[in-house]
Amino acid sequence: MWPAIQWENNKVILIDQRKLPAQEIYVECTDYHHVAEAIEHMIIRGAPAIGVAAAYGVALGIRNIDEKADMDEAFDKIISRLAETRPTARNLFWALERMKKTYENSRGLDLLRLKQRILEEAQLIEYEDIQTNKKIGAWGKALIKDGQSILTHCNAGALATAGYGTALGVIRAAFEEGKKIQVYADETRPFLQGARLTCWELAKENIPVILITDNMAGYFMQKKMISLVITGADRIARNGDTANKIGTYSVAVLAKENSIPFYVAAPCNTIDFNLAHGDKIPIEERDPREVREIGGKCFTLPDIEVRNPAFDVTPARYISAILTENGIARPPFEESLANCKRED
Amino acid sequence: MWPAIQWENNKVILIDQRKLPAQEIYVECTDYHHVAEAIEHMIIRGAPAIGVAAAYGVALGIRNIDEKADMDEAFDKIISRLAETRPTARNLFWALERMKKTYENSRGLDLLRLKQRILEEAQLIEYEDIQTNKKIGAWGKALIKDGQSILTHCNAGALATAGYGTALGVIRAAFEEGKKIQVYADETRPFLQGARLTCWELAKENIPVILITDNMAGYFMQKKMISLVITGADRIARNGDTANKIGTYSVAVLAKENSIPFYVAAPCNTIDFNLAHGDKIPIEERDPREVREIGGKCFTLPDIEVRNPAFDVTPARYISAILTENGIARPPFEESLANCKRED
Repeated sequence: MWPAIQWENNKVILIDQRKLPAQEIYVECTDYHHVAEAIEHMIIRGAPAIGVAAAYGVALGIRNIDEKADMDEAFDKIISRLAETRPTARNLFWALERMKKTYENSRGLDLLRLKQRILEEAQLIEYEDIQTNKKIGAWGKALIKDGQSILTHCNAGALATAGYGTALGVIRAAFEEGKKIQVYADETRPFLQGARLTCWELAKENIPVILITDNMAGYFMQKKMISLVITGADRIARNGDTANKIGTYSVAVLAKENSIPFYVAAPCNTIDFNLAHGDKIPIEERDPREVREIGGKCFTLPDIEVRNPAFDVTPARYISAILTENGIARPPFEESLANCKRED
Repeated sequence: MWPAIQWENNKVILIDQRKLPAQEIYVECTDYHHVAEAIEHMIIRGAPAIGVAAAYGVALGIRNIDEKADMDEAFDKIISRLAETRPTARNLFWALERMKKTYENSRGLDLLRLKQRILEEAQLIEYEDIQTNKKIGAWGKALIKDGQSILTHCNAGALATAGYGTALGVIRAAFEEGKKIQVYADETRPFLQGARLTCWELAKENIPVILITDNMAGYFMQKKMISLVITGADRIARNGDTANKIGTYSVAVLAKENSIPFYVAAPCNTIDFNLAHGDKIPIEERDPREVREIGGKCFTLPDIEVRNPAFDVTPARYISAILTENGIARPPFEESLANCKRED
């Protein structure tokens, strides 16, 4: 249905998100190193999608182990490799922990059945992610009224998940219900997820979308053309502080300044209950060329100094609500997110 | 010295700012239509530079009039054509009004001397602009302390003026004084003035500069890595509301939220005393291709709906001070900017 990740003929098939929307190219991963590299190079991105891809990476990795005696060591190696791909998104670590638990609980099985059990768990994570997104959408759509305009940043859509999407899932659900809505999509430099992926996804389903550059969001808020903001999340601390794509913090501050609700849509597995607040969320700094270059072409001096943090942290006080599969959590989040912990 | 605009051999020579920094190509304008098109297509941009270019455009335009009897009509036509190039920057209209006044006061001269007088006025506007920028720098540098980091948006440098720059003039003046400073330059989509022009200008003079995408400014403010913000202005209402490059409003809101001073550096001819506040400043909306494409390559769906406002208005309450050639104006600006009116 949606092509972000597919398991087919013992391969993980990913649409190359670096090439969209100009080209729809599929990448076949035949071992876990391929999957790890695909995550590192952002062939696949989006916190929930990374989690699903990593789970399949584990299933792929153990397929090549022929002796049960080698399994423990190999399994640890696979998990370690996949865990080092990207540091910020919680879902990656959540998925790897879940695969680890499954492995520990299945050690008694013979080699073939163990491999099958691990694959099934990855498939279950994929399946659950779609169901979770649909639940988030079902809760969240109530927050969107007929005729409203929604700003979104980056791509928290079907491409960022196993399908349907978190922030875009809420937008989809409102649209499917027949509400007349208008989406504004920030282009989201440096990787242009908004311009390339969100526009592509929404246009495919005829959901009205207007593309703007990141620095225009404030203008349209000031002009009262944005009714609400919805973004996804890469990691949420237990007080509600939310790491998401760089620029989310700016959008949240602008929304608050203009009295516009700012919503975060994310599955419970994005919440890191070990972190009291967002200050400790590791922020990935990526290759400076992503800032210097666009589409492989350098637009500045080739040796100019660059900073390239891929995420920022929006303090909980800017967030009107966090939408999970368990409902709409309102501040104080320490309390309202507790029902997610039970599910964790 | 700086190549934004030069009058040479009865031509207006402009560096093509669309091509920088990859190519240093000079465009020769031999009539006023060329100058008008150069302004429209952003071969030259930046409010003060547009004013100087338009003044030279007038001088160029009347060079081809052979009969004094035709002059009145021709002059009006030239002024009208140049006035319709871009709507937001005050300096364009200020320069054209000044050329008109000069013309009216010089009508008694014979044709050759009239043409010479008009050219001299354009040259005077150019000369004064550089002097003005140096005065702004001399006042403004006191606001920058040794060791501080300055965020700037767009390019308000030598390339945006007759030379030296407004916001970058202040930075230059602080640097020339021996202060250790670090500039952060927003890349400034869609035209990338920050990535292409500000980085080029500052690197030429070894002023330390770090390039970031527009949506990263909030992150570095939150991390306490920005001491102050300085931008230029395209039009300032008499209450201090300031139109400047799209994204300036967002930067100002983020600065206020993080208790960081936000300064505007601009010559007095940027102030529109006819406007009580910023709501009435006309905001130019440019070609949607500027958003869809970067360097001529489309990064989204080729027919996606786009909005492309080129400027936004920062309400005066976000502005810590406005730096003009007459000193540092603090709120309330209606009073503190009054000394600019006397000079207008």
